Amino acid sequence: MPRYKLTIEYDGAGLVGWQRQENGPSVQAALEDAIAKFCGEQITVYGAGRTDAGVHALGQVAHIDLAKKAPADTVRNAINAHLRPAAIAVLAAEIAPVDFHARFDAIGRHYRYRILDRRAPPALERGRVWHVGAPCDAGAMHEAGQILIGKHDFSSFRATECQAKSPVKTLDALTVSRNGDEIEITARARSFLHHQVRNIVGTLRLIGEGKWSPDDLTAALAAKDRARGGPTAPAEGLCLVAVDYPEY
Amino acid sequence: MPRYKLTIEYDGAGLVGWQRQENGPSVQAALEDAIAKFCGEQITVYGAGRTDAGVHALGQVAHIDLAKKAPADTVRNAINAHLRPAAIAVLAAEIAPVDFHARFDAIGRHYRYRILDRRAPPALERGRVWHVGAPCDAGAMHEAGQILIGKHDFSSFRATECQAKSPVKTLDALTVSRNGDEIEITARARSFLHHQVRNIVGTLRLIGEGKWSPDDLTAALAAKDRARGGPTAPAEGLCLVAVDYPEY
Repeated sequence: MPRYKLTIEYDGAGLVGWQRQENGPSVQAALEDAIAKFCGEQITVYGAGRTDAGVHALGQVAHIDLAKKAPADTVRNAINAHLRPAAIAVLAAEIAPVDFHARFDAIGRHYRYRILDRRAPPALERGRVWHVGAPCDAGAMHEAGQILIGKHDFSSFRATECQAKSPVKTLDALTVSRNGDEIEITARARSFLHHQVRNIVGTLRLIGEGKWSPDDLTAALAAKDRARGGPTAPAEGLCLVAVDYPEY
Repeated sequence: MPRYKLTIEYDGAGLVGWQRQENGPSVQAALEDAIAKFCGEQITVYGAGRTDAGVHALGQVAHIDLAKKAPADTVRNAINAHLRPAAIAVLAAEIAPVDFHARFDAIGRHYRYRILDRRAPPALERGRVWHVGAPCDAGAMHEAGQILIGKHDFSSFRATECQAKSPVKTLDALTVSRNGDEIEITARARSFLHHQVRNIVGTLRLIGEGKWSPDDLTAALAAKDRARGGPTAPAEGLCLVAVDYPEY
C-alpha cells in the first residue's frame, strides 16, 4: 500500500480549518472527498498542522495511503480535478516511505503573518492581511521579537483550549520586516502551541504602536499567564508557508 | 469648488469594471454612491483608465469636485467608510489644481500581469492570476517582448470594440520576469488601446511555450491585423498599478 506525501495550498476564507468538522467545509474533508471520487477509497488524510478557520496555507503537508499504486503526478492531478471549485490545490504528490508521518516527522514549521499597516482598508488583499490602521514600527517589533527566541514556557501566548501536553516550545526564528504598507512577520519552530503565532503577532503590534516596551514583552513571557499576553491577531493574516522534514 | 485627486485600489472580481453600467456593480458607481452618502452631492468621478470587468487596481487615479471644502484625509476616510463592504478603497486623497484631469493629464500608465505557471490550479491567488499549466520560458518572453517597445501601429493587439482614434501607441517598457511559479509582466505607456496589454500577454504566452518564434511576433505586429495577434489573456491577471502625472 503506497504512501504519498502531499503539499497543499489553500485559501482559508470560508473554511472551518484543516480538520473535518460537522459545521462547515474543511480542507481535510475536501481532500478525502476528492480522493474518494477519483479512486473510490474512503481514507483519512493526515496533516502536518491543524490550521484554524480562516488560516491559509502555501505549503501544508499531509500523507495518505492508497490501495492501488499510481504515478505521483497522476494522484496530484486527479485530486485537483475533483477538488474544484474549492480554493484548495495539491501542489505536489510524492511517493514517501511507508512510515512517513506528516505530523510526527515534521522538524520545522514556517508561518508567515501579513499586516497591512495603512489608514485605508484592504481591497485587493482583503482576507489575506490584518488591517492595522495605526502606524507600526516594524524595526521595534523585530528587535523586541528576538526576546522570544529560544526555549521558553509560552503559556502567555497559548490559547486556553490548547491541547499540547507542555507549554514549553522552542522558537527558532522570528522576523519582522516592512515592505511599503505591509509588515511581514515570519516564525519558525519545530511545533507551535495553539494560537501561538497569532498571540505573538497581537502582542508585537502593541510594541509596534509604542503601547508596550520590550520590557513589557519580557515580563509577559515570564508571567506564564495568557492574561498577561497581548490580544490574538485575526486568522486571515496567517499562512502556513512550509513544513520541514529530515531527508528520508 | 475644490478638486481632489483620488488614488484607488480595488479587487476587480465581481465588478463590471471601472465604468458605471446598468448590468452590475462598477467602481465608478460605488465611489459616486459613497460620496453622495457622505456629503449629499451627486457628482461624477473621472477615472484615469476604464479598466474592464475583472481587472484589478492598486493605483487607479480619479478626480472629483466637491462643493464644500474638507481636509483631504477626511474625504478619503469618509468615502472609505461608505464604500464598505465593497472591495474598493481610497488609498489617498489630495487637493489638486482646479484644472487637473485624471484621464487627460496622465503621462504614464503602469500595468502588471500575473501568470501562475504550474500544473496545479491557483488556490490562495485564485482570481488574481492567469493559470497557465504548461511551462513557459520567461526569458524568451522578455526578449521577444522588446520587439514591441516604441511607437507602432498596434492594430494586431487592439480589441475590435476599441474606441481610440488611432491604433498608433508608444510602448515605453515591457518586462517579463519569473519568481518561482509566477511570471510577472509589466507594461508602461502613456496610454493603451483596449485589451492591448491582455492581447500582448496572450501572445507572449505563445512565445513562452515555444509555439511562436520572435519572428512570428514581428510579423504579427507588422500585419496590423487583430486576427494575426495572439489570444486575449483573461482579465483576472491584470492590475493597473499606477498612473503618472507631471508635477503640478
